Amino acid sequence: MARQGIAERTGGATAEGADRRAAILETAARLICEKGYEGTSIQDIADASGLTKAGLYHHIRSKEHLLLEIQSYGMDVFEERVLHAVMPIEDPLLRLKTCMAKNIHLVTSGWSKEVTIILHEHATLTGEARAQINARKKRYVRFLETSFAEALQKGQTRAINPKVAAFAFLGQVLWIYKWFRPDGQIPADALAQEMVDLFFGGLEDPSGPAPKARKTGKKG
Amino acid sequence: MARQGIAERTGGATAEGADRRAAILETAARLICEKGYEGTSIQDIADASGLTKAGLYHHIRSKEHLLLEIQSYGMDVFEERVLHAVMPIEDPLLRLKTCMAKNIHLVTSGWSKEVTIILHEHATLTGEARAQINARKKRYVRFLETSFAEALQKGQTRAINPKVAAFAFLGQVLWIYKWFRPDGQIPADALAQEMVDLFFGGLEDPSGPAPKARKTGKKG
Repeated sequence: MARQGIAERTGGATAEGADRRAAILETAARLICEKGYEGTSIQDIADASGLTKAGLYHHIRSKEHLLLEIQSYGMDVFEERVLHAVMPIEDPLLRLKTCMAKNIHLVTSGWSKEVTIILHEHATLTGEARAQINARKKRYVRFLETSFAEALQKGQTRAINPKVAAFAFLGQVLWIYKWFRPDGQIPADALAQEMVDLFFGGLEDPSGPAPKARKTGKKG
Repeated sequence: MARQGIAERTGGATAEGADRRAAILETAARLICEKGYEGTSIQDIADASGLTKAGLYHHIRSKEHLLLEIQSYGMDVFEERVLHAVMPIEDPLLRLKTCMAKNIHLVTSGWSKEVTIILHEHATLTGEARAQINARKKRYVRFLETSFAEALQKGQTRAINPKVAAFAFLGQVLWIYKWFRPDGQIPADALAQEMVDLFFGGLEDPSGPAPKARKTGKKG
């Protein structure tokens, strides 16, 4: 079902076709992160995908178009699994918590880390292509900001600045690709829960010593 | 005083020499972010710095060495203005809060945004140079992790995972260069205070409706 959605939007005729295309774009992302965009040829991507060049062109438009295709694919998957999944949640605080957990799952296990890198670090797109991806990224920021403003208005939050909250949320979630290792000590599920608790509940123990008391009072 | 510290460590003979070198490295960082490392020549950097090539070589070692010099300069400034400034603070929670505020000030106004980009996105360093910078970055992560563990032990925090807290802190702070504009609506001081409140106090209003009550209870 989820796959079909992506297939429709990316123009793949079948769910299988969309899976194939996703695998190719993730392979291309890995090669580009390893060898640079200039250093990666269409032949390299075909070889790594077990395809002929002609077979590869069935799935991607051109090398010139490749960075846009990877970024668009990243945004397609993100919107389907995170943004569109949480938009209908009525309670803004629950919407934001679910959104953070889903976004963390996507960043830790939804695709290869290199897709995130190309989505957020490759400033190589220009003109119309760049504007297109930026508009989709901005839409997410606006969604977060609006949700935080709504939660504030409902009295669910302290007196936050919704814009700062939105970017703090994003930074916490998107920085994960810089350090998280799928085979490391922290499982993705535990990470999502920890981060949601930390972001929404705060670090300080609300039942602990008052934050103003700077003495080294022992407890627990 | 601060400048002298950097001058000593970077080998500049005087505070003025260190300022000069800093300005050159920030110019080089800007050019590299604009035109790429390969696309930036020593002549470009000399021109943009108002120096002859010979004059430039008085301040930098070689083009090959430039990315390491920019990253080392970034780490020098960071350690002096943030890490070494907060390490002596005895109370771990106050140490962490001060650290976040100081790091935000550095990212928003301590140097050009491009130094941060080269420090965190340019994976171009290899071998010994890369190991050297990574060791300094890891030292910061360890410092944060240890401070969070200490705060936890003192009963100042809820039951956090210190490693997750450290990376959540870093993500929130380091993502700022992606969106912050010095001429934007949020002044750097207000941003630092907002983020400290948000990270340590949490988003939810502790005196507000219980987080389990998902009803849309109006308040404030």
